[in-house]
Amino acid sequence: MKIEDYIISVPNFPKPGILFRDVTGVLGNPDALKLTLESLYKILDNVEFDAVAGLEARGFLFGVSVADHFHKPFVPVRKKGKLPRETVGVSYDLEYGTACIEIHKDAVKPGERVVLVDDLLATGGTARAAIQLFEKLGGKVTCCAFVIELFDLKGRDALLGYRVESLTKFPGH
Amino acid sequence: MKIEDYIISVPNFPKPGILFRDVTGVLGNPDALKLTLESLYKILDNVEFDAVAGLEARGFLFGVSVADHFHKPFVPVRKKGKLPRETVGVSYDLEYGTACIEIHKDAVKPGERVVLVDDLLATGGTARAAIQLFEKLGGKVTCCAFVIELFDLKGRDALLGYRVESLTKFPGH
Repeated sequence: MKIEDYIISVPNFPKPGILFRDVTGVLGNPDALKLTLESLYKILDNVEFDAVAGLEARGFLFGVSVADHFHKPFVPVRKKGKLPRETVGVSYDLEYGTACIEIHKDAVKPGERVVLVDDLLATGGTARAAIQLFEKLGGKVTCCAFVIELFDLKGRDALLGYRVESLTKFPGH
Repeated sequence: MKIEDYIISVPNFPKPGILFRDVTGVLGNPDALKLTLESLYKILDNVEFDAVAGLEARGFLFGVSVADHFHKPFVPVRKKGKLPRETVGVSYDLEYGTACIEIHKDAVKPGERVVLVDDLLATGGTARAAIQLFEKLGGKVTCCAFVIELFDLKGRDALLGYRVESLTKFPGH
């Protein structure tokens, strides 16, 4: 069984010319979901970390199981305005305009090591902003783990100096 | 250990007069997270279902572990425009204006039984809309499972005729 076979390629979403890689096929097959989660556990077996962070919304799908498996706290990285307590935020550029993501100020303590989990590595902009968030609080990101990497969008270049792992690799177009 | 003790009450969020019940304290404590997930598994042990649905975004945090535990497919219920393939949608009223949620058309087959998972039952509007979504496809919701129930907002009344389970109960104000 290969995770790749459960990732559905959808042309022209969310706009013309984009070939969207859809993880709902993985979620919809219990064996593919189990293989994906266990592959994430395996990758992280030799990474040192104190917490697992997931990026809203699709990083929430995979991050909590990882946190529970390793018996670590889970930190939700959310879009601006969604977290109820005191936060730190980082803005980053999108193709059009900017976005802002936040974590609670008590999400990590100085020196704590964090693994970022998300479904997709594209240009790496969101992951890079999330790394900056944790560094603002004195934390350190020891691995970024993705289910899908769109290798030709060069997200790894945006995350240079950080460990990047991905379970599957697809072209971005 | 009690799950209640890890739910943080935040006054005046997202607006004045609202007492927000925040699950990030549960997520941030590995023992509380494990207890929460295992309590969901226990509740669902005597429910018959073919798939687990989670409501964007916080339902994603708990739903995937439940799906994986029972070796069932996970169906993401998403806000309009987020799912890449052919969808069905339901609109529902919010305090101000309306919202629309969607699932992929192939998310369930006629006759399949679905468990809904979300972090919070308030007025029940979103859960009710999600039930309608699955019923549009010929599916059947056999249980709605929540981590937190704001009992005085009477969400159970909105879900009359459906099985509703919650791990903790708080007043909504």
